[in-house]
Amino acid sequence: MMTIQETAAFLKAQDGILLLTHVRPDGDTVGSAAALCQALRDLGKTAYLLPNPELTATYAPYAAPYLAPEGWEPRSAVTVDIADAHLLPENALPYADSIVLAIDHHSSHRPFAPRVCLDGEAAAAGEVVYEIVRLLTPVTPRIALPLYVAISTDTGCFVYSNTTAATHRIAAALLEVLDAAQVAAVNKALFRTKSKTRLAMESRMISGMTLHDGGRVAVTEIPLALREELHATEADIEDLASLASQVEGVDCGITLRELRPGVVKISVRSGFRINASDVCARLGGGGHRGAAGATVEGTLPEVKDAILAAVAAEEA
Amino acid sequence: MMTIQETAAFLKAQDGILLLTHVRPDGDTVGSAAALCQALRDLGKTAYLLPNPELTATYAPYAAPYLAPEGWEPRSAVTVDIADAHLLPENALPYADSIVLAIDHHSSHRPFAPRVCLDGEAAAAGEVVYEIVRLLTPVTPRIALPLYVAISTDTGCFVYSNTTAATHRIAAALLEVLDAAQVAAVNKALFRTKSKTRLAMESRMISGMTLHDGGRVAVTEIPLALREELHATEADIEDLASLASQVEGVDCGITLRELRPGVVKISVRSGFRINASDVCARLGGGGHRGAAGATVEGTLPEVKDAILAAVAAEEA
Repeated sequence: MMTIQETAAFLKAQDGILLLTHVRPDGDTVGSAAALCQALRDLGKTAYLLPNPELTATYAPYAAPYLAPEGWEPRSAVTVDIADAHLLPENALPYADSIVLAIDHHSSHRPFAPRVCLDGEAAAAGEVVYEIVRLLTPVTPRIALPLYVAISTDTGCFVYSNTTAATHRIAAALLEVLDAAQVAAVNKALFRTKSKTRLAMESRMISGMTLHDGGRVAVTEIPLALREELHATEADIEDLASLASQVEGVDCGITLRELRPGVVKISVRSGFRINASDVCARLGGGGHRGAAGATVEGTLPEVKDAILAAVAAEEA
Repeated sequence: MMTIQETAAFLKAQDGILLLTHVRPDGDTVGSAAALCQALRDLGKTAYLLPNPELTATYAPYAAPYLAPEGWEPRSAVTVDIADAHLLPENALPYADSIVLAIDHHSSHRPFAPRVCLDGEAAAAGEVVYEIVRLLTPVTPRIALPLYVAISTDTGCFVYSNTTAATHRIAAALLEVLDAAQVAAVNKALFRTKSKTRLAMESRMISGMTLHDGGRVAVTEIPLALREELHATEADIEDLASLASQVEGVDCGITLRELRPGVVKISVRSGFRINASDVCARLGGGGHRGAAGATVEGTLPEVKDAILAAVAAEEA
């Protein structure tokens, strides 16, 4: 385990750096990688992001200035917000042996890199990257904006329980250098805009929602058929995992997404009563106390039974 | 106009202080008044909030420890978050002549008190109260929690464009003294909870939504029959007017609510292209540039035609 200072010193000595983001990339992995890439370039280094095949339109603009050109050969690779080697996208596997450092904030992190800079208390990898970057180079708007995206998306815009005093302190420092109109536009796009398809998806998920355990546990489903019927893109279904947990009286919201026939991605969002990470660990997954996931084999009804059993076992 | 320092010094010299909140009290006026009341009490002073007849269950707990007993006679009164004398609740009018100070953050503030402490850049009155209180007494959890409610509600939990670096800096200071579980519970209750009825209502409104003018104008409806079918209360349908405006590509969201047979309340939420106030004025209503309304006679289809014609006329 490396400290922030050691990590900054280590990065200073690197060059030709490829930054790797995780499968189903979110604002935190993309924003953190983009900010770190810009900081490394500001230090005069060559640095790129590996294009992530699953990148959605929401976060593509943040990665765009940094995408590695085809054929470029990195000297080393650094992962950002990746908790486990199996969360590397397929096109990152050829670089697995080049990984020299993992920067992460998942307390469930399973070491796969020779060096790890991990803060399990940080709400986002963006917080860790901020602390590293400020030791390396001035935090310019081009660094601050993707970091704001990283931190705001991983905290639901400072509303999730992972938000700490440190989160707000870093947000203050980022806003200090950012244009207010730019931040307003980001907030409107990320937190106050929904596609028609997404609204239809929410509508259908809500009407199919089931409540369990006296209304404290809610399950919503995203069957493949629904996705196909609505022609939903990845962007349309991003973050839908928080929907079930918003229902009054619910402190454990479960979302089951059929990835392909026979494979279901489980997302759990929980309050203090239930540890989402422990629940998901029972099905081979992991994550944080309040937000965790697992990908398992089975039909939707089978997986629903399994996850409800796991929740019941954790309650007991 | 008084500075923060002058205001703190002035309050130090007062005693027997009645704090006044505005009509249709929100989190900012109630939270700010509660925090200031606790700070004055921590200084050994007698201080109370005037009970606000329109206080809702959402904010009542924050005012509860501070409500003035019947018959108590204040020596002076201080207003918090009140931009204009006509926003005083009716039961505050007997104290209008006792007002010695107004603490506010509305740049539209129309002076009615002999002393004004105003910061038009502050996202919430809670920010101004925080700066005053920290000069008077340690910011304890009993002060920090209502201030957090004040600031988070007025910024939509740090998402609205009024959120600044200062807002986040103050939030960081408040979270520093607050219990994480307490803040999580507040955020969950204020920003991440919807009743099942409300979710069903949203779901039905979305499935019935129509798009016009190339997708830039969206219309949702709340027929009486739907309200009755879902047994929806006033609380279940408050703020639903913003739903249509959240749709991607929409810059004019219209909500038609059937108040009783033959009478429809129109709500318009618009971006920069269309002036909602002008649109509603065409049907005898009014409001602000970005949010306006009108109540008209007619069936839902008739009113829908009329408001779409009004929008088209404003576009022309």
